Amino acid sequence: MIIVMKPNAKQESIDNIIRIIEEKGLTPHLSAGKEVTIIGVVGDKSKLLDQNLEIAEDVDRVVPVTESYKLANKKFHPEPTVVKVGNALIGGDELVIMSGPCAVESREQLFETAFAIKKAGAQILRGGAYKPRTSPYAFQGLEEEGLKFMKEAREETGLAVVCEVTSLAAIETAVKYVDMLQIGARNMQNFYLLKEAGKTGLPVLLKRGLSATIDEWLNAAEYIIAEGNPNVVLCERGIRTFETATRNTLDISAVPVIKAKSHLPIIVDPSHASGVRSYVKPLSKSAIAVGADGLMIETHPNPAIALSDGPQSLTFPQFEELCEELRPLAALMGKKF
Amino acid sequence: MIIVMKPNAKQESIDNIIRIIEEKGLTPHLSAGKEVTIIGVVGDKSKLLDQNLEIAEDVDRVVPVTESYKLANKKFHPEPTVVKVGNALIGGDELVIMSGPCAVESREQLFETAFAIKKAGAQILRGGAYKPRTSPYAFQGLEEEGLKFMKEAREETGLAVVCEVTSLAAIETAVKYVDMLQIGARNMQNFYLLKEAGKTGLPVLLKRGLSATIDEWLNAAEYIIAEGNPNVVLCERGIRTFETATRNTLDISAVPVIKAKSHLPIIVDPSHASGVRSYVKPLSKSAIAVGADGLMIETHPNPAIALSDGPQSLTFPQFEELCEELRPLAALMGKKF
Amino acid sequence: MIIVMKPNAKQESIDNIIRIIEEKGLTPHLSAGKEVTIIGVVGDKSKLLDQNLEIAEDVDRVVPVTESYKLANKKFHPEPTVVKVGNALIGGDELVIMSGPCAVESREQLFETAFAIKKAGAQILRGGAYKPRTSPYAFQGLEEEGLKFMKEAREETGLAVVCEVTSLAAIETAVKYVDMLQIGARNMQNFYLLKEAGKTGLPVLLKRGLSATIDEWLNAAEYIIAEGNPNVVLCERGIRTFETATRNTLDISAVPVIKAKSHLPIIVDPSHASGVRSYVKPLSKSAIAVGADGLMIETHPNPAIALSDGPQSLTFPQFEELCEELRPLAALMGKKF
Amino acid sequence: MIIVMKPNAKQESIDNIIRIIEEKGLTPHLSAGKEVTIIGVVGDKSKLLDQNLEIAEDVDRVVPVTESYKLANKKFHPEPTVVKVGNALIGGDELVIMSGPCAVESREQLFETAFAIKKAGAQILRGGAYKPRTSPYAFQGLEEEGLKFMKEAREETGLAVVCEVTSLAAIETAVKYVDMLQIGARNMQNFYLLKEAGKTGLPVLLKRGLSATIDEWLNAAEYIIAEGNPNVVLCERGIRTFETATRNTLDISAVPVIKAKSHLPIIVDPSHASGVRSYVKPLSKSAIAVGADGLMIETHPNPAIALSDGPQSLTFPQFEELCEELRPLAALMGKKF
Repeated sequence: MIIVMKPNAKQESIDNIIRIIEEKGLTPHLSAGKEVTIIGVVGDKSKLLDQNLEIAEDVDRVVPVTESYKLANKKFHPEPTVVKVGNALIGGDELVIMSGPCAVESREQLFETAFAIKKAGAQILRGGAYKPRTSPYAFQGLEEEGLKFMKEAREETGLAVVCEVTSLAAIETAVKYVDMLQIGARNMQNFYLLKEAGKTGLPVLLKRGLSATIDEWLNAAEYIIAEGNPNVVLCERGIRTFETATRNTLDISAVPVIKAKSHLPIIVDPSHASGVRSYVKPLSKSAIAVGADGLMIETHPNPAIALSDGPQSLTFPQFEELCEELRPLAALMGKKF
Repeated sequence: MIIVMKPNAKQESIDNIIRIIEEKGLTPHLSAGKEVTIIGVVGDKSKLLDQNLEIAEDVDRVVPVTESYKLANKKFHPEPTVVKVGNALIGGDELVIMSGPCAVESREQLFETAFAIKKAGAQILRGGAYKPRTSPYAFQGLEEEGLKFMKEAREETGLAVVCEVTSLAAIETAVKYVDMLQIGARNMQNFYLLKEAGKTGLPVLLKRGLSATIDEWLNAAEYIIAEGNPNVVLCERGIRTFETATRNTLDISAVPVIKAKSHLPIIVDPSHASGVRSYVKPLSKSAIAVGADGLMIETHPNPAIALSDGPQSLTFPQFEELCEELRPLAALMGKKF
Repeated sequence: MIIVMKPNAKQESIDNIIRIIEEKGLTPHLSAGKEVTIIGVVGDKSKLLDQNLEIAEDVDRVVPVTESYKLANKKFHPEPTVVKVGNALIGGDELVIMSGPCAVESREQLFETAFAIKKAGAQILRGGAYKPRTSPYAFQGLEEEGLKFMKEAREETGLAVVCEVTSLAAIETAVKYVDMLQIGARNMQNFYLLKEAGKTGLPVLLKRGLSATIDEWLNAAEYIIAEGNPNVVLCERGIRTFETATRNTLDISAVPVIKAKSHLPIIVDPSHASGVRSYVKPLSKSAIAVGADGLMIETHPNPAIALSDGPQSLTFPQFEELCEELRPLAALMGKKF
Repeated sequence: MIIVMKPNAKQESIDNIIRIIEEKGLTPHLSAGKEVTIIGVVGDKSKLLDQNLEIAEDVDRVVPVTESYKLANKKFHPEPTVVKVGNALIGGDELVIMSGPCAVESREQLFETAFAIKKAGAQILRGGAYKPRTSPYAFQGLEEEGLKFMKEAREETGLAVVCEVTSLAAIETAVKYVDMLQIGARNMQNFYLLKEAGKTGLPVLLKRGLSATIDEWLNAAEYIIAEGNPNVVLCERGIRTFETATRNTLDISAVPVIKAKSHLPIIVDPSHASGVRSYVKPLSKSAIAVGADGLMIETHPNPAIALSDGPQSLTFPQFEELCEELRPLAALMGKKF
C-alpha cells in the first residue's frame, strides 16, 4: 500500500500516518520529495483494513499495490486450472462448446436440440430453467420441470448439462439434476448466491457482470473458491457500453487479461455479447483465436418462435456449419475439437 | 410496435409479416415508400411476444413503441405515489433524509449515530447488517444481531429504520425488525429477491444498478409492484462510467427523467455516488434543487475507523452543518424539512 | 512516481531500476516487503519521461503521483481565477448566463434572441457560426456572416458574445467579431486548435469532451494556458454513457471535482447534456446548487423550426421563467444575478 | 421516419403532424390504436429536417428509419471497396499490415524499423510526425522533418507510408511526402479536418473516436467521401469504457458490424486498443479471425526508450514472431499474406 501525502503536508500529519502503520506492526518507508512525500507499506495490508487512511489529515490518496483476490490469482497459483464437467475438460487442450436454448421450453425442444448439438460436436448442453428477465411479464422459465428435462437429455445423449441458478432454492433443486451451475451476469455480485454455489462443490460457470471490472469478476470467483470449491469457469459475455449496434460489447481482451492474471479457464458467449445471429460466427472465431478455452452458443430448433433470445439463436444447420469452420482454427490454436 | 423492412424487401416477406400479425388478431398498418416499407402494429403487443419478427426474412429491425412497465408508468398512473415509512412520507411535500453508518458495527456506534442524525433532522436510520462486499475478506456485516440493534435504536429514537437485504433468509429475518427493506445496486436485477421483497408488503427502497438504464430500473420496480406492493421508493446512487475522479457518476438527470416517466418517489445517495466526503454537501444540494424527494447520506461517529465506506462518511458535525444548509434550499423548493 | 515490482522480482531487476533512476539524478526510495518491493521516486519526473519503466524486467506497474497539469492545478495556484468577458466576471460572486441559439440562422433570429435573453438577465450571447454536425448533410452554419450578426447584436444590446471555432481559419475570422472563443466537445483534444486559441489571448470556453476524463480536460486547459492565456472557463456539457433517456449524462459531480483540483471557473450546459427541453430547468437549478459559476442555455424564437438542436431549446417565455426561478437560488448560493 | 404520439393525444395534435408532413409533399400513414397512434412517413426525410417534430404538441418521440450516411452505406453500394495504398490493396483478399513507431524520433530509428517490418511482411510503414498528446509537456513530434524521413524510408524500402495529420497545415505538408493520411481518434469528429483530408484525394485511414458510435463513425467517413474521395479505410482502435485493465476496450464486434453496414475496408489496431505489449499478439489473431482486412501494430527498435507509447510497442523479434504466427491464420481466413 502506498500513501501519497498532499503537497506541503505538515510534518505532524506525516508522523501520524507513520505512527498508525507502526502501531499495526508494519514498517513504513518514507520517500520525502520537494513536492510530495510518499509512504510505502509492505506487508500484510489486511492489518490496515480498518484504518481509512484516505481521510487522515493531509493524505492525498492511497494506492493499493496488490490485488485483493488470492485464490484466483495467478501470482500465487501459476498452473492453469482444468475443470471437469461430465467428460469435458475445460482449461486444458480441449475446445469445449456449450450450446442449447436460452430457455428450456419443452421436452421436445430440448431433446431435439441436444441431439443436434451433440452431432455437431458440442460437449455440454445449456438450457435455462430459471430465467432472469427484464420485464416481469416475459416468460420466466419452467423451473424444476425444465431441470428434469435437462437430466433426461443428459441421460439420452451423454452430454453434460449446465443450468443457471438464481436463488438458494434453485441451487437446492438444481444440484439434483445438473453437472454445472451457472451464475448469470445479473447475479455476479450476488455474494450470497456465490457462497451457496461454492458450497455445493459442483463446477460453477461464472458469467461476467454487465459492468463488472475484471478485478471485481475475479473477486466474485474468489467468493466461490473461498468456500472450498476451485472448479470455477469464467464466461465473458459482453459488457455495457455506449455502443448500441450490438446488444453488449464483447470485451475480447478479457481473455488474455484473465490468462495473465488468473489460472482459471475462460470461455466466451458471443450470442449474448452481440444479440445478433449473424455476428455469432465471426465472434466465435475471434474468441478461439484470442485463446478462449471454449464457447457458449445459443441454438434453437426454430429461433423465430423461441420464448427467449430468439434473434441471437442459431438454427441447427447454422450451428453445424459454425462447428465445421471452427475445427481447423481450433487445430491451429493447438486445441482438440 | 413498428417493423422496419429492409430496402427492397420482397413482397412475399412483407406479406409474411402481415399474415403473422393478422393471425394474432392484430391490425397491421403499412407505409410503403420508395426506399423502405414500415409496418405499424397497434394493440396488445404481448400477443406478438412469442414471435421473433427481428429475424423474419427481410426485416431490418423492430422498434417498440410502448414501455414494458405498466404499474410503475406515469402514463397509466399520473398521480404521484407517496410512501409512508414510520412517520415519514416520501414523495409528497416533505424532504426525507435517511442517514446512518454503511455497516452496523456495534450497539454503541449505532445508537450514537441514531441520536445524532435525529437531532440534525433525519427521519430514517439506515444501517447495513448484510453487506455485499467486493472482496470475501472484507467485513460482511453483523446480520441478525445488527438488525436487533436497528430495532432497539428505532424504539429509543422514534426514527424509522431501513436495512439492505441480500437473500430470502435476510428478508425473513429483517421483516421482524425494520420498517423498510433496501434492495442494493448489485441486486437490482435479482428478480427472485425483488419478488420476495414485494411479497412482504413492506416499503422497498430500490437502488439503481451500477449499469442499469432507467427503463430497466422501472422494470425492476414493476417486479415489486406486480406482487401487490406499490410502496417502492427509487434511489439514484451513481452509475458506472469511464470517469474515475468519483467512485461512480451521479446521474442527476435521473431525477427529472423518473418524474417524467413514473409516479414513484426518488431519492439520491450522494455518498455512494461520489465516494468522497467533501463532495457530499454540494451533491446533496444539487439533488434537492433538481427535485429529489429525499437523500440517503452515510454518517459515522469516527469515519477514520469505519469498517465500511469510511472515506465517504460524514462526521456528526458535518452532517449537522449539511442539514442546516439544506433547510433554506428545501424551503425554496417547496419542501418541508 | 512509484514503481511496483512483480512478486519475487530478481534483485538484478530491482538494481536495474535503481540504476536508471540514479542515472537521471533522482533518488530512489526502496520499500522491500515479503511479497513485493516498491520503489518511490520523488522529484522532477519529467527526467524519467523517456524511460518506459513499465516494460523493464520484473516491473508490475508504474503509478504516477502528481498530475501532469501544473498551470491549471489548484495545488500550485490556490486562488480562484476570474475571467472577464465583456462586463461579465466568471468565477467570482456573479452567476453568469450565456444563452442564444445553437446556430445563428439569420440576423432577425439572432437579434430577437439577443434582446429577449438580455431582458431575462443573461450577460453573454452564444450563437454557432461554424457547426460541427454528425452528418455532412445537416446545416453547417453561416460562418463569417453569422459572426458579423453576432458583432452587430453585441453592439445593439451590450451583451458580450461567444462563438465556437473549429479551425485556424475560423479563429482568425472570429477574433475580429467575438469576445470569447468556444472550443466544442468534439475538439477538446484537438491540441492544434487549443494552442491556436491560446495564442489569441481571448477568453476561451472549453467544453468537456464526450468521453474525456476530468484529468484530460484539465490537461486540455493546460495547452491553452501554456500559450500564455490564463482566461479559460470550463463547461460541463454531459458525458457519454450507456443511458439513453437523455442525450448525454450530465456529470454534475464534475463541478465540485473541478473546484477541488483547479482554480478555473466552471459553468454547466444543461441543454446539450440532456437534449430535452423539459429537463433544462431542473438541471439548471442543480448546477447552481452544486456551485457552478454559470450556465449555458439554448434559446430560440421558435424551437419547432430551429435548424439545429430545436428539441432542447427554450422559448423566450420559458427562458424568462427559468431566470426568475434561478434568482432566489443564486442568492442562497451567494451569487449575484 | 416514425412519429409516435403520446397516449390519448388530441385529434388536433395528430392532424397538425399530418398537415406538416403533407405540406412537405410527403405521405403520412396513420396507425391508430387503443393506446397510442403512430404516424409513418416514407420518402425523402431531408424535407422534414427543419421541422423539429419531437417538440410538437402530443408527440412522444420520433424514430428514424434510415441511416443518415448514404455514400458509406452498404445498402446503396453493396460491393466492397478496395483501397490501393502503394502496392497494397486493402479490402480485398490481402491481409495488409501497417507497422512502425508511434512517433518518428530520428532517421536512424525510422529506417531501422522500416527494414525490420518489411522483412517480417508488413506492407505499409506508419510513423507519427504530428503527435496529439494528452499533456502539452510530452513530445509533440518532429513535424515536417519527420515526414521527410518517412518519404526517404519509402524510397529506400518500397513500403508505402501513412502519417497522422492534425491540422490543415499538416495536411498541406503531408501530401508532399506520404501515401495515406491518418485521421486520429481524437479528431474523428473534427469535421473541418475530414473535409480537407477528403479534398486531397489521398487514401484516408479514419480511426474510430474513443466514444464514437459506429453510426457516427460512418457519418465521419461520409464527410470524406462527400468530398469526392472514396478511398477511406476504417480503423478500430478501442473504445472508452469503465474497464481499466486495458487502456481501451477493443470493440472486436465493430468488424462484422461494419462489414454488415458498409462497403469500406476495416483494419484493427491492437496496440492502442490494449496499451499492453503482451496482449498485441492474441488480439491481432482475434482481429484476423473476425474478418478484419488488416492490422496496425506499433514497433520500435528499443521500446524501453520510445518517446511515445513504448509500453505497447513490439520489438522487431516480437513483430517477426507475430507475423509468422499470423500466416497460417490468414490462409485459413482466405487472405494472402
